Amino acid sequence: MSKRHWESDPAPLLAVSTGFDLSKVDPSSTPAFSGDKHDGQSVLADASDELSELQERLYAESRSGGVRRVLLVLQAMDTAGKGGVIRHVVGAIDPQGSKVYGFKKPTPEELEHDFLWRIRRQLPGAGVIGVFDRSHYEDVLIARVRSLAPAEVIEARYGQIIAFESELAASGTTIIKVMLHISPGEQRARLAERLERADKHWKYNPGDLDERALWPEYQKAYQVALERTSTDDAPWYVVPADHKWYARVAVQRLLLDALRRLDPQWPAATFDIEEEKKRLAES
Amino acid sequence: MSKRHWESDPAPLLAVSTGFDLSKVDPSSTPAFSGDKHDGQSVLADASDELSELQERLYAESRSGGVRRVLLVLQAMDTAGKGGVIRHVVGAIDPQGSKVYGFKKPTPEELEHDFLWRIRRQLPGAGVIGVFDRSHYEDVLIARVRSLAPAEVIEARYGQIIAFESELAASGTTIIKVMLHISPGEQRARLAERLERADKHWKYNPGDLDERALWPEYQKAYQVALERTSTDDAPWYVVPADHKWYARVAVQRLLLDALRRLDPQWPAATFDIEEEKKRLAES
Repeated sequence: MSKRHWESDPAPLLAVSTGFDLSKVDPSSTPAFSGDKHDGQSVLADASDELSELQERLYAESRSGGVRRVLLVLQAMDTAGKGGVIRHVVGAIDPQGSKVYGFKKPTPEELEHDFLWRIRRQLPGAGVIGVFDRSHYEDVLIARVRSLAPAEVIEARYGQIIAFESELAASGTTIIKVMLHISPGEQRARLAERLERADKHWKYNPGDLDERALWPEYQKAYQVALERTSTDDAPWYVVPADHKWYARVAVQRLLLDALRRLDPQWPAATFDIEEEKKRLAES
Repeated sequence: MSKRHWESDPAPLLAVSTGFDLSKVDPSSTPAFSGDKHDGQSVLADASDELSELQERLYAESRSGGVRRVLLVLQAMDTAGKGGVIRHVVGAIDPQGSKVYGFKKPTPEELEHDFLWRIRRQLPGAGVIGVFDRSHYEDVLIARVRSLAPAEVIEARYGQIIAFESELAASGTTIIKVMLHISPGEQRARLAERLERADKHWKYNPGDLDERALWPEYQKAYQVALERTSTDDAPWYVVPADHKWYARVAVQRLLLDALRRLDPQWPAATFDIEEEKKRLAES
């Protein structure tokens, strides 16, 4: 039994609520978890089947008209481990039941539209777990730090995001927003590894250091976004991510808890089972 | 070492070539594989890491301008195990590197367009392994069996498909087309299981028996499609699928072989590594 490694439900410890201060979160901490890396990996492996079955139930429910779905939004500084979370947590789910989308720098076509236009096009269907690798929050993060839009336009976006997410929640989407939080020192180590290893060079971009130079500005932009857009409909969780294993197991736990609360059930047959057995026997 | 279970490369035994006769393929056979279910499962697990790494290399290549990608087309009678192949073979790949799409009965909007219109919209991007759960072949299978279009329209589609796939191949897509081949008896057993188990009812549709009643017509339509559209650019493989474990390990092997032939390499750095190390140290 690996559950004992969770001393308590981590969600309340990770959730952004009134008075939240990002600068007080220790990126190397492992809230509510009592074990080490090895324990984290066991918990991750052990809970994968449950995660996978809950998703399948949610999908089955959607085949009978259910509209519920889950959206996991991942935001972070470079190298914080979004990709690893997707690979190791979401990777346990049937690929037919998840939809991962990475938002890059907006294309000219995307820029012709409202910032939520491209987001809406990638929302998960009923029964599916959608994962956003970056999201509409880029439009209040890098956009704010680099003044990619007039200040009043960016200012208006927080309210637009809250309204948008509230609409999604009302139509059956459980939204989980996660900021993976690393320290500048850990980022340096991870960038150094990308420079050392030939199989990691492709992940390195000299522009990463330009963003890194704006660390305090990004932290400020995150603080504003987190405190202004963490709502009951779409709460933010700040997950310490200097330990990759912790970030993974914590995000898995947030997903699991959401699915357990949804508690999807296998749909009842909409046909006469005995009649169909007879038809099958005669076929 | 699990490789010894493959006595030889299964591809030539599974490929559709001149003189192919679907009725001569034994759905319960396990071509080129010497082991049993347990061995098949070991091979599947052991080869997953290689499959996953090859896909990551292909993706890395695409980040440096590579255009190569893979498209796996899955076709089969109901219950043949497409879903299981996706879950157990494709599920080993990073979800960021695969794109699974299930084609359903065409929507009114899709019907307003050429039959390849909706297919083109779901093609994988560079570096990605696309998987079609059903495909444009439905338009020469169910469409033929149920006369969903005039005979001459369907007749013209074979050539249109060949031209389309040849275009994809020319622009960097490695296409692997697989028919999972089950027997009517095995289908009966699998449908019976769906009727027995409450957690499987949602997968059962009374219409499945109407399709089942047309078994010989479907086999004929498959025979025509297989012999007319198996090309060097986009070969068909008929994979015996009465043993689920064999179907999975065989499709994994076809994917692995395709990726090994592509032999994607980690891209060289496009920046000055020493210079970046210096910048990083100073950051």
